[in-house]
Amino acid sequence: MSFFRHHIRLMEGYVPGEQPEDPSILKLNTNENPYSPSPRVIEAIARIGPEQLRRYPDPLGNQFREAASGLFGVARDQIICGNGMDDILNLTVRAFSGPDAALVYPAPTYTLYAVLGTIQASIVREVPWGSDYTLPTDALVAARGAVTYLANSNSPSGTFVPVDQVAELADKLDGVLCVDEAYVDFANADCINLARSRPNVLVMRTMSKGYALAGLRFGFALGHRDLINGLMKVKDSYNVDAVSIAAAAAALSDQPYREQTRQKVITERERLAAVLAELGLPCLPSQSNFLLARADAPPAAELYESLKARRILVRYFNSPGLDDRLRITVGTPEQNDTLISALKDLTA
Amino acid sequence: MSFFRHHIRLMEGYVPGEQPEDPSILKLNTNENPYSPSPRVIEAIARIGPEQLRRYPDPLGNQFREAASGLFGVARDQIICGNGMDDILNLTVRAFSGPDAALVYPAPTYTLYAVLGTIQASIVREVPWGSDYTLPTDALVAARGAVTYLANSNSPSGTFVPVDQVAELADKLDGVLCVDEAYVDFANADCINLARSRPNVLVMRTMSKGYALAGLRFGFALGHRDLINGLMKVKDSYNVDAVSIAAAAAALSDQPYREQTRQKVITERERLAAVLAELGLPCLPSQSNFLLARADAPPAAELYESLKARRILVRYFNSPGLDDRLRITVGTPEQNDTLISALKDLTA
Repeated sequence: MSFFRHHIRLMEGYVPGEQPEDPSILKLNTNENPYSPSPRVIEAIARIGPEQLRRYPDPLGNQFREAASGLFGVARDQIICGNGMDDILNLTVRAFSGPDAALVYPAPTYTLYAVLGTIQASIVREVPWGSDYTLPTDALVAARGAVTYLANSNSPSGTFVPVDQVAELADKLDGVLCVDEAYVDFANADCINLARSRPNVLVMRTMSKGYALAGLRFGFALGHRDLINGLMKVKDSYNVDAVSIAAAAAALSDQPYREQTRQKVITERERLAAVLAELGLPCLPSQSNFLLARADAPPAAELYESLKARRILVRYFNSPGLDDRLRITVGTPEQNDTLISALKDLTA
Repeated sequence: MSFFRHHIRLMEGYVPGEQPEDPSILKLNTNENPYSPSPRVIEAIARIGPEQLRRYPDPLGNQFREAASGLFGVARDQIICGNGMDDILNLTVRAFSGPDAALVYPAPTYTLYAVLGTIQASIVREVPWGSDYTLPTDALVAARGAVTYLANSNSPSGTFVPVDQVAELADKLDGVLCVDEAYVDFANADCINLARSRPNVLVMRTMSKGYALAGLRFGFALGHRDLINGLMKVKDSYNVDAVSIAAAAAALSDQPYREQTRQKVITERERLAAVLAELGLPCLPSQSNFLLARADAPPAAELYESLKARRILVRYFNSPGLDDRLRITVGTPEQNDTLISALKDLTA
């Protein structure tokens, strides 16, 4: 006997990448930033006193919204904070989609969209990407989503859809377009301007990747105030805590630090992509902090296991269109050298 | 034009109690613990390093589950962590209720149950409490909830339903019984044993009240592993962050501190209740850290405003059955003296 709703009973949960406790394992599987967060974050956390813990936090996270408002040039009431971007995604799925309102996205992409749609018993429509992950605009429009998700940069491909194409898609859609910019800190452009100018574009961000705060759980979204107001009704009253509001605001305020780590990651990404190509593991052009490499000899699944045996974790997706690929997070130069050295052995 | 689902468009959001920024306002309106959290919490937060922030947290919060497992005598896989108890409530509403599966609770109670049910377009059935907040067992069973919520101690009444009555209700219900024990740290008993022995009882807890960590957002639930496993599928993968896992585990490990602050609050609660009765503001017997006082002269709404003008915030609910009452959080002896002195003036 089960007390759960039928569709919950049937579903599988989302499976996150492995999070081994052993710090000696080289972890290139879940796209964390290889560099520490800004020292200002550590300072902000050190300043947290008992009174901030004892009292409820600001329900709206205004300290963070203030900082984000200045940085992104949008009003404070066009910003909503979340317990990681997953919280924001969850809010949008519940607010816009349902058994009679479709959730649409180009696939392959972040597999959580489908899981969240299933939890809500929503209609879920996957539209295949065009070749080499080009935007299938017409097919997305034809899928008539009440909400459409576009990961840009996309995971696991690392590819980026140019902003003018995203704008065209937004204008053709009847529903909301949620642009998941989790990896945009490593891209050459972003869609913030669409969130400013379109009533149906929500841009979603995280502090996990570009700001190296995956452990903190802090995400946010920018958009028209009607979108933000509606999402506010659905969110938990106190969905972000006092420590993470202060820490996320501190991280956002240190743009020189972000720029510095971003440049280091991008430089290494390009170096790693070139070496992988030489080793017979070609990658799509990436605008993220990871690379999707094709592996034929040995096959991707085998190479994944061989790397794991050498205590190097990368991501293998055993699913159609991806089962000949490995997604590899860009590490520090030393970490990448360790990986390269192992790959040289294994592909020789 | 709105992009939101119809029932979201129509609904009002949950309205949390006022959270004034001015620290000089005497805040007796949202039931925070008047004492600081355990010093061990501050120590745990001070130990957080960049590496814990950079990496994803443990998706299951095992450091906390380990501590809770020992304290409550349940297996680790009978425990789920949440971003505040609101997160846990949200999970249960989505997992058990829906347009074809009723959510039931005795009212008046925590108004979030109804709001969460509305967000899910669930059938919501309020059952009135018996006189003086006695459990309306037969009416609750007749309401046939897929899920039934029981706040015990209840808010805003502060009253407690004896455990044997809760057990009887659980055994008569076909669905899940979620016992919201947010305030149980100030009660004389709890329902943990029912979560251990019944397949359909989930006990939900928070670190906000008894452990003085409202700013941290950490809740958890205990129950049969089938219940916990199902809820795990619905939760966000990383719903609790690295800082709060460490801080909540530290707080839980300091039971002597919790016991000390608990006793101080209970002693003050009894003193305050006696004084309020003398002032013509009689209260129901409370097993929580607040009192629900009846106010006739002046009427509750007026008394609330007069206190606010003196920079003392209490909670007034402008709703049927509650509009002649004030809910007053028990403060420190000094805070309670300030309140008493103001009330003596205002009721004279």
